Amino acid sequence: MELIVYLAGQIHDDWREKLRQSAEQRGLPIIFKGPQEDHDRSDDIGEVIKGKQPNAVFRDQAASEFNNLRTRIWMQKADVVIALFGEKYRQWNTAMDASIALAMGKPLILVRPESLHHPLKELAQRAQVVVETPEQALDALAYVLE
Amino acid sequence: MELIVYLAGQIHDDWREKLRQSAEQRGLPIIFKGPQEDHDRSDDIGEVIKGKQPNAVFRDQAASEFNNLRTRIWMQKADVVIALFGEKYRQWNTAMDASIALAMGKPLILVRPESLHHPLKELAQRAQVVVETPEQALDALAYVLE
Amino acid sequence: MELIVYLAGQIHDDWREKLRQSAEQRGLPIIFKGPQEDHDRSDDIGEVIKGKQPNAVFRDQAASEFNNLRTRIWMQKADVVIALFGEKYRQWNTAMDASIALAMGKPLILVRPESLHHPLKELAQRAQVVVETPEQALDALAYVLE
Amino acid sequence: MELIVYLAGQIHDDWREKLRQSAEQRGLPIIFKGPQEDHDRSDDIGEVIKGKQPNAVFRDQAASEFNNLRTRIWMQKADVVIALFGEKYRQWNTAMDASIALAMGKPLILVRPESLHHPLKELAQRAQVVVETPEQALDALAYVLE
Amino acid sequence: MELIVYLAGQIHDDWREKLRQSAEQRGLPIIFKGPQEDHDRSDDIGEVIKGKQPNAVFRDQAASEFNNLRTRIWMQKADVVIALFGEKYRQWNTAMDASIALAMGKPLILVRPESLHHPLKELAQRAQVVVETPEQALDALAYVLE
Amino acid sequence: MELIVYLAGQIHDDWREKLRQSAEQRGLPIIFKGPQEDHDRSDDIGEVIKGKQPNAVFRDQAASEFNNLRTRIWMQKADVVIALFGEKYRQWNTAMDASIALAMGKPLILVRPESLHHPLKELAQRAQVVVETPEQALDALAYVLE
Amino acid sequence: MELIVYLAGQIHDDWREKLRQSAEQRGLPIIFKGPQEDHDRSDDIGEVIKGKQPNAVFRDQAASEFNNLRTRIWMQKADVVIALFGEKYRQWNTAMDASIALAMGKPLILVRPESLHHPLKELAQRAQVVVETPEQALDALAYVLE
Amino acid sequence: MELIVYLAGQIHDDWREKLRQSAEQRGLPIIFKGPQEDHDRSDDIGEVIKGKQPNAVFRDQAASEFNNLRTRIWMQKADVVIALFGEKYRQWNTAMDASIALAMGKPLILVRPESLHHPLKELAQRAQVVVETPEQALDALAYVLE
Repeated sequence: MELIVYLAGQIHDDWREKLRQSAEQRGLPIIFKGPQEDHDRSDDIGEVIKGKQPNAVFRDQAASEFNNLRTRIWMQKADVVIALFGEKYRQWNTAMDASIALAMGKPLILVRPESLHHPLKELAQRAQVVVETPEQALDALAYVLE
Repeated sequence: MELIVYLAGQIHDDWREKLRQSAEQRGLPIIFKGPQEDHDRSDDIGEVIKGKQPNAVFRDQAASEFNNLRTRIWMQKADVVIALFGEKYRQWNTAMDASIALAMGKPLILVRPESLHHPLKELAQRAQVVVETPEQALDALAYVLE
Repeated sequence: MELIVYLAGQIHDDWREKLRQSAEQRGLPIIFKGPQEDHDRSDDIGEVIKGKQPNAVFRDQAASEFNNLRTRIWMQKADVVIALFGEKYRQWNTAMDASIALAMGKPLILVRPESLHHPLKELAQRAQVVVETPEQALDALAYVLE
Repeated sequence: MELIVYLAGQIHDDWREKLRQSAEQRGLPIIFKGPQEDHDRSDDIGEVIKGKQPNAVFRDQAASEFNNLRTRIWMQKADVVIALFGEKYRQWNTAMDASIALAMGKPLILVRPESLHHPLKELAQRAQVVVETPEQALDALAYVLE
Repeated sequence: MELIVYLAGQIHDDWREKLRQSAEQRGLPIIFKGPQEDHDRSDDIGEVIKGKQPNAVFRDQAASEFNNLRTRIWMQKADVVIALFGEKYRQWNTAMDASIALAMGKPLILVRPESLHHPLKELAQRAQVVVETPEQALDALAYVLE
Repeated sequence: MELIVYLAGQIHDDWREKLRQSAEQRGLPIIFKGPQEDHDRSDDIGEVIKGKQPNAVFRDQAASEFNNLRTRIWMQKADVVIALFGEKYRQWNTAMDASIALAMGKPLILVRPESLHHPLKELAQRAQVVVETPEQALDALAYVLE
Repeated sequence: MELIVYLAGQIHDDWREKLRQSAEQRGLPIIFKGPQEDHDRSDDIGEVIKGKQPNAVFRDQAASEFNNLRTRIWMQKADVVIALFGEKYRQWNTAMDASIALAMGKPLILVRPESLHHPLKELAQRAQVVVETPEQALDALAYVLE
Repeated sequence: MELIVYLAGQIHDDWREKLRQSAEQRGLPIIFKGPQEDHDRSDDIGEVIKGKQPNAVFRDQAASEFNNLRTRIWMQKADVVIALFGEKYRQWNTAMDASIALAMGKPLILVRPESLHHPLKELAQRAQVVVETPEQALDALAYVLE
């Protein structure tokens, strides 16, 4: 039986791709879904589809319609959500996705460096699993699939 | 008919107290609830109740049990959630509270300076109302109560 | 035991006020809630609270944040929703409020002149009760309260 | 992974067929469902199955049983709902379907000409995405499927 | 703390009134709600409010709109549902009310003479409590309130 | 896309088999599920699995555990429920299954001879579709699948 | 604002009474509810209300109808559930009540001696708060009420 | 149509394997899922993935994160839950899994020796089916699949 896993987190490096490759090498039957990983496309998509907006705030708002649509559709289909936090960026989207996953009853695997334990303590306490690297999150899924 | 309003956001200044006073001056029948506003007590509460923990991570984890208990109880009773973001702090708790409110079907009033429009665009697009100051959030509630 | 009733429908005449008076004369323990009945205020509220918007579309969008906030809060508290349709206006808000009531499991009393039976047939078939005048809706509530 | 999309809106022209063809040309894995598109059959179906009804109101009511059955079954299976509003017709069914989609937690793509922004402002504010043409709605789905 | 109890069952004798009196004598803080107990009024209410209907089927259908409205409103407020079955009448309304209570997660006390154990076995197996007389149902509530 | 249909109703004649054959002849992609149709087996199953019970009431109770298990599993998978009532038998199970379907949000097609319109008026008013023969119920599904 | 707290756990000593007194001394606005604390009455209640049962199994089954009714009614009204485990007794009821509280979304405070950490580790991991004495559970509630 | 069955219960002997073999011999289309059956691995998994923990309590807590993740994922996919209790062990996990299944609306088959009827009476009363051996649980599923 396949698992569908939504990968919430920043889109500034290729951590999702590495995770996909690792899962494949380990032979895990997992389908990964996630946000648009092309950062510029994610910011532009509102004006690409809806046309020029009056200013930067409205441009962002337009983009977020499409990014949220994408997140909602895939998260509703997901069996598990992995949320990755790192030292850089504010990552409020990650916090939002993680929290919505919790509130929808989706099991949440929180990945964060130990250095972030203080600001993330309340979220960590609500997560199903807390680990420090994406590979450990994959270990958790491998354990579920044993 | 009274409204119960949960005030999510940082606990480093007295914005909640100001809001309470303003509501009172305007004669609005609102009961405000929120997290523990004494920051040190919020960090210490785990060890105060459960005793000394093995290290800082577990100390945080213990504190978060009680802080999350508080948030859950009052948020479940709330008619509306106001979430305030500012320039300082990572505020992942605020993002978590705001998102859980959304996922529980509670109407969310997002308060953020315009300068934060980009990192908060996805959350803003899901909120019921987006304004820039707590007083505007109160204007919204006053309008509901007219 | 009091009933809370949400009055969805156009805000261009005083049908809600008449209903309130009639309920009072009949001694029915009903608390009525509804949208902002001052039409100009309902259209202006976005700019009143959030300030001048870039154009008419965004002005409307801003107003609707506050009008929807109001509707959501009161509809969640309502025991019953009455939705009044008339010959004039497109009344998509009324259709929206009526449908959301249905989907939330709130009993819906649909009030429409017989002349509208064709365009409203699918909504009528889903409503709990279909009558032709607000006074008949009140008769229904009086029957419930007998 | 395929998406199931429910197409709410008027049944007086062939916009659904055009959308189906466009999706096929773009190679999008989408299954479209929607109401009965043969308008006469949609109006007649009550008497076709249940036999002659006492008058036009009951004839409409009988038809709506079957039209609502169809809508409910397919909308429950849908991942996304697209609701198209145009200048013509009252389209209360469209407003009803759109609102029920919202209340069921289905992501809603609202399609409406800019000229309708005022009467649809409250519905627009609740939709996940608001665009002006069906092709833009397809752009949104293509973005989700990237 | 008061309990609200919905009394489903036939409306051909005064079993509800006896139960009310017994609860009062025992000093139990219970508010009883139920269907319209005046049988003729229950059958007539559709035409009383909506006017003459085309035939007996539509007359019944009109009455049931108001009877169902009443049931839904009070059952949603109830903490417990008592459903009484007896030897006489088909009592499909009772079976419907009992089953809807079960499906809404309301605790159900089924009251039936032992002679009916066979036709009611599946409903009995789903009920929270099965007894043979209304007074035993009251014993159960008294036990809850101890 | 296939539909799963649960067939609630008496198990004393072969109406389900006829419906299955008719659906096959019409080429409708429908999977039918339902209760145990062998009446003796349905009554005996408790003692067959659990062994001899103390008396007839407990024998019935034991059987109903397994019959309810079966109903719950298949009804949860169903897209639509058809409930057939006839002149004979008390059919409280049918009323229970129909009502639970309603409360679970499953569309319900009620089949009953016109002669039963009075005792079934409240259930009819809540059903999605009311017809008089199983074949008409199949017409309704065929319309959905057009 | 008062909190309603359900006290799950064994009924062999007076820990509930001590907790009530302590809450009163500390001036905490808490209403405590729980199971029947008279152990014999809890075991006898089935036969007291329903009469002599065929054997011990059915006697237990009868008693559990009334005990479960009580638990369900009060747990549905509770804001928080406290579940106390001790060294003695199997306490499956406590585990059941705690788990149902979790699944209903009620915040759970688990009280257990450290010696039980191994067999209760999965339950502990799901609880909102884990402490070792009832007084600590009260500390948690006092913190919420600050 | 296949059924997915979650097997809750102790992991100290091979009862699950026997059930799998029996289902296969009987040709039943059932997919079984369950907890990690290698007891040592179940206890170690926290430290295997997260590394050495400060003490035994935290070691257990770490393990339970992964065991609970596994249970949640498979239980959400299950159509039925079988929970086996025996004379040995405290089996609070079994009680927890059984209760969560109940609260999630999953049909529960409780398997317990008659000797345990007293401590399990409340859980038994809530289960869909109560039997004494795993093979009887399989009989129940075979009956559903007839």
